[in-house]
Amino acid sequence: MVVKVYGPAYGCPKRVLVCLIEKQIEFETVDVDLFKGEHKEPEFLKLQPFGVLPVIQDGDYTLYESRAIIRYYAEKFRDQGTELLGKTIEERGLVEQWLEVEAHNFQPPIYNLVINVLFSPILGVPSDAKAVQESDEKIAKVLDIYEERLSKAKYLAGDFFSLADLSHLPFGHYLVNQTGRGNLVRERKHVSAWWDDISSRPSWKKVVQQYKYVV
Amino acid sequence: MVVKVYGPAYGCPKRVLVCLIEKQIEFETVDVDLFKGEHKEPEFLKLQPFGVLPVIQDGDYTLYESRAIIRYYAEKFRDQGTELLGKTIEERGLVEQWLEVEAHNFQPPIYNLVINVLFSPILGVPSDAKAVQESDEKIAKVLDIYEERLSKAKYLAGDFFSLADLSHLPFGHYLVNQTGRGNLVRERKHVSAWWDDISSRPSWKKVVQQYKYVV
Repeated sequence: MVVKVYGPAYGCPKRVLVCLIEKQIEFETVDVDLFKGEHKEPEFLKLQPFGVLPVIQDGDYTLYESRAIIRYYAEKFRDQGTELLGKTIEERGLVEQWLEVEAHNFQPPIYNLVINVLFSPILGVPSDAKAVQESDEKIAKVLDIYEERLSKAKYLAGDFFSLADLSHLPFGHYLVNQTGRGNLVRERKHVSAWWDDISSRPSWKKVVQQYKYVV
Repeated sequence: MVVKVYGPAYGCPKRVLVCLIEKQIEFETVDVDLFKGEHKEPEFLKLQPFGVLPVIQDGDYTLYESRAIIRYYAEKFRDQGTELLGKTIEERGLVEQWLEVEAHNFQPPIYNLVINVLFSPILGVPSDAKAVQESDEKIAKVLDIYEERLSKAKYLAGDFFSLADLSHLPFGHYLVNQTGRGNLVRERKHVSAWWDDISSRPSWKKVVQQYKYVV
């Protein structure tokens, strides 16, 4: 049974793809075109009632929310591929903490940038300059805290690569490569080294190469 | 060793309190006054660098982000108190999915209501009427999806109470009891029955009684 992943061209589904590759799990992808509104069509809403990406189908098991999906596979295939949850319950606690930080502090301002800098021109709607400025300021503050953390540990949850780091890849890529904000990373020595480390993993390079970002 | 929980008077720390009670774990609380800015003081920022609540200390283990903390205790004390993660990895996957839905779809619009309806008057800043209206509309749409889900299962992740339901208590309480939006729950038969069920658990009644909401 091969896992089906919906929407590989976008950011959050890439979180799932890179996890499946790290865990050596076979998958296939199903394209969903957000610009044509395919995520709001009845067939898609049967799988994901909120009308957002991603969703996976694994036999008769359907699951959505990218960070739920990566936790599920990291746990189900704990002994296969890269260990992504830490070795102890205390390590996993810190993985969970930094997964939450990524979801609540890191992704939202970058998401705002993506909407205003990349998506608005395609959709023909005006970009919100104030929102862009606020996002830039928030990202800088968040990365200052990351710099402090990464001066004490090689990865976010400790001296081991985990879901906490992996979860930063899709929007970290937007920040560095798609929205022209690489300087926010490069100006911070430890964040910069961490980003180079995680973004050069073969799993992530494969995702970026095979499943191009739509913008 | 007794767990220390910071900020019991506010919403997110209550997520931790109700979990610790369900898991029969001893704890004590440390007051943090947001209106005096105590969450931005250097001593607090050493524990929680983002300056938000809650954070716990458990011996020399410090952890923040309420949903990370509840996952940690639900897993560490899996065989003690109420099982909150489901019985199988597939059930846990659905618990994770609905925990994410709570974090990304349920809490944010209610948080906006809380800021604009409850906190703004105390802080002497104007309330944003447009934000309130948008929040009301978002909450209604989200609860429509919950109504559909809860017509098919007693609880969000299936026919078992879990972290997914528990995580809704603090901001569900704000919605129903503090911001005058009880109608949004009452108008939906299955959501209403679910809310009555989870909010009448002795654990939650104890939290609300012993750790009053500051507003």
